[in-house]
This record gives sequence, C-alpha cells and structure tokens, in this order.
Amino acid sequence: MGQSANWSIPLGYRAAAVKAGIKPSGGLDLSVLVADADCSAAGTFTTNRVCAAPVRWDRNLVPSESVRAIVVNAGNANAATGAQGEANAFETAKHTAAILGCRPEQILVASTGVIGHQLPMDRVRDGVSRALEASTSDTSGFDLASQAILTTDTRPKVFSERIELGGGSFSLFGIAKGAAMIGPKMATMLGFLITDARVASQDLQPILSRAVENSFNCVSVEGHTSTNDTVLLLAKAPAGQQPIQGADLQRFEEAVNRACQTLAKMIPDDGEGATHLITIDVEGARDREEARTIARAVADSPLVKTAIAGADPNWGRIVSAAGYSGVDFAEQELSLWLNDTPLYRDGVPLPFDGPAVSSQLRAQRETSIRLTLKRGEGVIRFWTCDLTAEYVRLNADYTT
Amino acid sequence: MGQSANWSIPLGYRAAAVKAGIKPSGGLDLSVLVADADCSAAGTFTTNRVCAAPVRWDRNLVPSESVRAIVVNAGNANAATGAQGEANAFETAKHTAAILGCRPEQILVASTGVIGHQLPMDRVRDGVSRALEASTSDTSGFDLASQAILTTDTRPKVFSERIELGGGSFSLFGIAKGAAMIGPKMATMLGFLITDARVASQDLQPILSRAVENSFNCVSVEGHTSTNDTVLLLAKAPAGQQPIQGADLQRFEEAVNRACQTLAKMIPDDGEGATHLITIDVEGARDREEARTIARAVADSPLVKTAIAGADPNWGRIVSAAGYSGVDFAEQELSLWLNDTPLYRDGVPLPFDGPAVSSQLRAQRETSIRLTLKRGEGVIRFWTCDLTAEYVRLNADYTT
Repeated sequence: MGQSANWSIPLGYRAAAVKAGIKPSGGLDLSVLVADADCSAAGTFTTNRVCAAPVRWDRNLVPSESVRAIVVNAGNANAATGAQGEANAFETAKHTAAILGCRPEQILVASTGVIGHQLPMDRVRDGVSRALEASTSDTSGFDLASQAILTTDTRPKVFSERIELGGGSFSLFGIAKGAAMIGPKMATMLGFLITDARVASQDLQPILSRAVENSFNCVSVEGHTSTNDTVLLLAKAPAGQQPIQGADLQRFEEAVNRACQTLAKMIPDDGEGATHLITIDVEGARDREEARTIARAVADSPLVKTAIAGADPNWGRIVSAAGYSGVDFAEQELSLWLNDTPLYRDGVPLPFDGPAVSSQLRAQRETSIRLTLKRGEGVIRFWTCDLTAEYVRLNADYTT
Repeated sequence: MGQSANWSIPLGYRAAAVKAGIKPSGGLDLSVLVADADCSAAGTFTTNRVCAAPVRWDRNLVPSESVRAIVVNAGNANAATGAQGEANAFETAKHTAAILGCRPEQILVASTGVIGHQLPMDRVRDGVSRALEASTSDTSGFDLASQAILTTDTRPKVFSERIELGGGSFSLFGIAKGAAMIGPKMATMLGFLITDARVASQDLQPILSRAVENSFNCVSVEGHTSTNDTVLLLAKAPAGQQPIQGADLQRFEEAVNRACQTLAKMIPDDGEGATHLITIDVEGARDREEARTIARAVADSPLVKTAIAGADPNWGRIVSAAGYSGVDFAEQELSLWLNDTPLYRDGVPLPFDGPAVSSQLRAQRETSIRLTLKRGEGVIRFWTCDLTAEYVRLNADYTT
C-alpha cells in the first residue's frame, strides 16, 4: 500500500471500497471499479460445474463493448445459492446500473467468501450506493479496492505498468486476490485489470484468454478449483474510433501477459500458511496440456508440498506424482532437478549431497522443480506453494 | 495381535519375519509367505508410470498356477532405481528360489519404503535365508509377517475367515499395510491374501480384480498413488484335481470381497494423523466410473478433509469439489447429506442446525458424506480420512 504513490491509474476509471457489513469481521468488503464511458470487456471464469451466480451473470455478458462497472463483494461467494442467488446477482447489477444511468447488462459482478449463503441484499445495495458515491480516480480509491476484495490473503496483490504504444502512453493496472480456494469459510481467486488503451472486444478476449492460460491457470494452492474464479479485463471501447492494432496490439498483449503472470504468482506466494513459493517447470512433454497435467499433479501432491515445507529433498515423491498424473511416459525418459541439483536422470537416481540440498531448501523461500521428458516440445511453468500445519489449522478451525 | 489366537490360517502355508537391517529403526522388515505346493496366484498393481522393480517382476508372472512364495521387504521401495533395481528384485526371487528348490519365476516379491535407493542385497539375502528357516504354519509366523510389512502404520491390518464350501471348510487369511502413499520417506499400500481353497488361476484373477476395484481402489489418504501398490492372492493350484466351481466359486468370491473391503477400509482408518474415517457414497451417476471420479475428487480435497478434521459443516467445500471433478453434471441435480443431515437439495441450500451437525462430527470418528445425482444408476462407496496438522508434521519432518 506504501507503493500506491507509484501506481499509474488508467484515465477514465474511478474506484472505491466500503465496509458494507458482509464480512463478519466488519472489514472492507464491497468495492467498485467504474468507467466513465463504455468499455471493451473480456473475462475468463471457473470451470467448476457448481459455479457462482455472479459467474453465470458475467459469462453471459462478455466479451462486450459496453461495460461500465465491476462490483465485487467479499465475505459471501453467492455460490450454491440456487435461483435466489441468481436473482441477487442480477439485483446487484440492477441497483448499480440505476445509479450510473445504464442497463444492468453493463455491470459485471464478482463475489468471494463462504459458499451456500444468500447475500444480505440490503447491505449490498447500501454498500454499492456508498461506494459509487465515494469513487475516485485517485490512487486511494484503487488502494481501498485492492484491500476490499481480499479474504484470507495477508496482503493486496497489485500490478501497475505504463505501456508505450504508437498512439501514445497508456496504463495497465490490475488487482487480484486468492490464498486458497477457501480460507476459513472463504473462497476464490479473482483478478481485475483495467487499461485506458482502446481495444476492440474481439481482440481483448483472446488476449485475456491466452494470458490466463499461462498465468492464473498455472497456479494452485491445494488444487481445489473454486466456484467463483473470475478474471476480468476492461479497456476503452472503440466507440467509433480506431482501436489499437498490429505491433501495438502485440505490445499490449505482452503487457497483459506480464500483469497476469505477476498477479498470478502472488497467489501461491501468499498461499495460506505457505513458507515456500514453488516454481515447477515441465519440459519435453508432447504438448503444453500434457506438460500442465504433469505439473499440476506434482503441484497438488500433499506429499510433495509437505516435503518442501520440511526442506526434505525426498525427490521420490516428485517423480511418483509425475508417474500418476495420467501421462503415459516411460520412466526411462524422466529426469529431475531440484533447485538446479540433478537428482534423477533417464530413470536412474543420481548421487547428491542431501544435507546441502536440504539446507538450500530451508534457506530459500523460492523453490524450483524441473522435470524433463523426451516426448516433444511441450513446456509449462507452474507455480504453487508448500503445505504446512498452519494451512491445516486455518482450514480446520471451526469459526462460527 | 492379541486377536491372533482366533485366526484361521489356511493349510499348507508358512510365514515368518525377521529384522534384516533394511529399516533404519532396526525393526522387523523382511517377511515371507511360503506355500508347501504350487499355488494359483492373482495380482493387481499400481497404475503409476513410475513403478517399482518388484511390481514389474510380479506383473509379468501373474496369473500363474505355480507360485511358491511371496517375499516382502519394508524400509526400501526399490522404486525409481533403474536397471540395478530390476536386478535386485530378480536376485531376491532367485535367492529365495534356490533355498526352496524352485525357479525364480515361482517367487513374487514386494517392497515398500523410501523411493530411489538401492536395496542392501547382502541384508536382503541374509534376511530371506533366516526368514525361510524360521517360517512356520503357526499363527505366530503370520503375526510377525503382519507387523513386518508395516511402515508408518500404527497397527497391523489382518483379515481371517472360515469359508464353508461344498467341498469342505476352508480359510481365507489376509494382511495389508498402508497409512499414506508415503509416511516420512516411506511408501505404499500392500495386501496379501492366501487360501487353502483350490481355485484355477483363470478364475482367481478376475475375482481379485473385481474385489480390488471395490475395495483397495476405493480408498485414498491423500490421493498420491504409490509406485509400489500391490495386492496378491494365493490359492491352492488345481494340480490335476478339480478346482472349486459354480456356487462355491461365488461364495469364495464373496469372501474375497469381504476380505479386501475389510482390509482396505483399515488403511484410511489408520491414515497418518487421521482423526476421522470418512465414507463417501455417490449415487445416481451415469456409471460406476463417473461415481468414482466424483467420490475421489471429494476424498482428495484438502479443504474437505480439513473441514471434517475441524468438525466444520462447511458443505460448500464438498459440492464444489464434486463440481471440479470433471463430471459435467448440472448443479440442479446435485444433493448432499452429511451424517444423514440433508444440507443441499437439487442445487438449493437447506436450513440446518450447524452447531448440532458440528457436535456430531466432533463426537464420531466415522463420518458419512452422501452425494446424489440424477444421471443414472452409477453408485460407489469410497473411503478416506481427514487431514490434520499431524499428517503435515509426519511428512514434513526431515529425518535423515
């Protein structure tokens, strides 16, 4: 938050957050991101079959070139809430639209928090009204919003960058939240990006989809896909003018990639109870999806995660997790490096200095796992965190 | 072990176990199950692509009608050990066969323990020699074997039953081990069953395969499939006489099912650090495999497991785990019961007495989760355990 002085907020956007009384803690829990004019909007959403009402609402609306605002509440996921939940998501959009003087379909909504409870709509309406009233283009509004979307996160997750394009200088600004699918009764990964570059929605959606594939879809904390995962990207709509194209569009996409990767990595780095950020590189798979399948099996193995937490170079857990991933590789083509120390080559264990590797694991917060196969050119970089007793404590404590 | 007086050991088998010096603890670690005559043998094995040398050895030999012994070591998995590991598995069989006066191909081997280390073959050979020398048809030998196959298990897992068939009265006896894929540097689920009923190998293998599908393949502790999982079933080989058939064979299969289910359930019940045994019933799936996919997603969710550990009726974690299982059901057909309390019906949350459900979760070691869909007749019963800080402590402690 001390960084906010350096943030570069895109022109034409305002933000604010208030304490609406949705979180039992009484903290900031309702935020708005408002555009002064219609925006191009792209979105990516959870693949969970049990998906939240706000996800259903947004999914029907993007891509779009007429979005005016994003409303986010924390403390209640509005998931597994049936038809009443859908009505509440709509009511949130409708109330916001009435104040802004636009249609409900121009408002995107997102929620995070406990599953299976109905939103307290009086508080939501009141919170939206006050947040819109307070919204400001000053960094302070965005600072509050970056805090109000959090649940069990220990810190806000913010990205800010200037992009120099042919048509001038623009800003790309993003915020995210997530520390587990669910903290104590909390849920979800959310990401919101805004830019004052002018981008057509048919360009914006594939740019966001590709960026999310290589960022938010490459992180896990414990592998429990949320009901509410949502990443939204707003840009200035063409509105009769020329949107960015060609090399500018490519430079814009690179900035979106940096933003998504930077924010995504912050999630496992702030994973509940985490003491290590683990980067998993898989190389030589048949294709990228195969590499992702292996990386995810390793990332989600409680035995791999507890070994890293304990600074235990118990590499058999890593190769055996790759082995049960479902990819039908041959053991003889598998090799493994842990923090650049080769441990296993072509299916044969290598001698190594166990205490030295353990000391390095204990000393560094960042851990690197590299697995190579000989099947093709498929590679992926994936991020996760370790599993500590603190994670269990946070998620087992009964708090009602 | 105090139960061993009641065990009914099949005729024609001997067992023993010794301290071979493979486990760092110096405990019992090498056991033999020996048949006086050729046996019918069936086996099921891990699906992990990184599979142990003993698994490769056994898989090539079963089904068979000439097996004479099973040799099991704990403390070293002989997995991810390359060609030297394969040579060591063969050498174990060869050494055993030389003493018994049979071919190496009549000896099955199994290992459990740390991955990636070569077996100390001098100790293995010496242990096999002493165990064969000590082997006895008395329950004491089987009692020792049931202990020697354990790693981080807190107790032996034994099944014993008399089966009355047309041809007379027989015994079915089984032992198993498993508390996690890996305890601290340990590994694997193993099960060994013997009977003095005479069964043809072409009958024995499908009977075991079906039984394992509904038992050992329906349990998980943390979802990390081992490199060494092995279940073996020995029966008297036909050897020119009439094997059991018809109704007798069916009654025999029912006994094998009971044995496998009883032993399999003992594994999550003794899961590392576990305080709850969780039974998950999924009903109304399109088929059994679809039901298993959903049950396994719920069973392996760290968030579900920590909620049960904390006696927290946080049911959103359960329905959201079903939602990301990969089965494309509609939320509106999903219902959930926790310990017989209905919490969610046809996609709508139900009011319930939270403190009462929590008290019940806290008071009972056994927890029941029931999920129903409306897609078809597919059902499954699956067992797992909760996830506690003690599990993390056991698996994160660096012990070298």
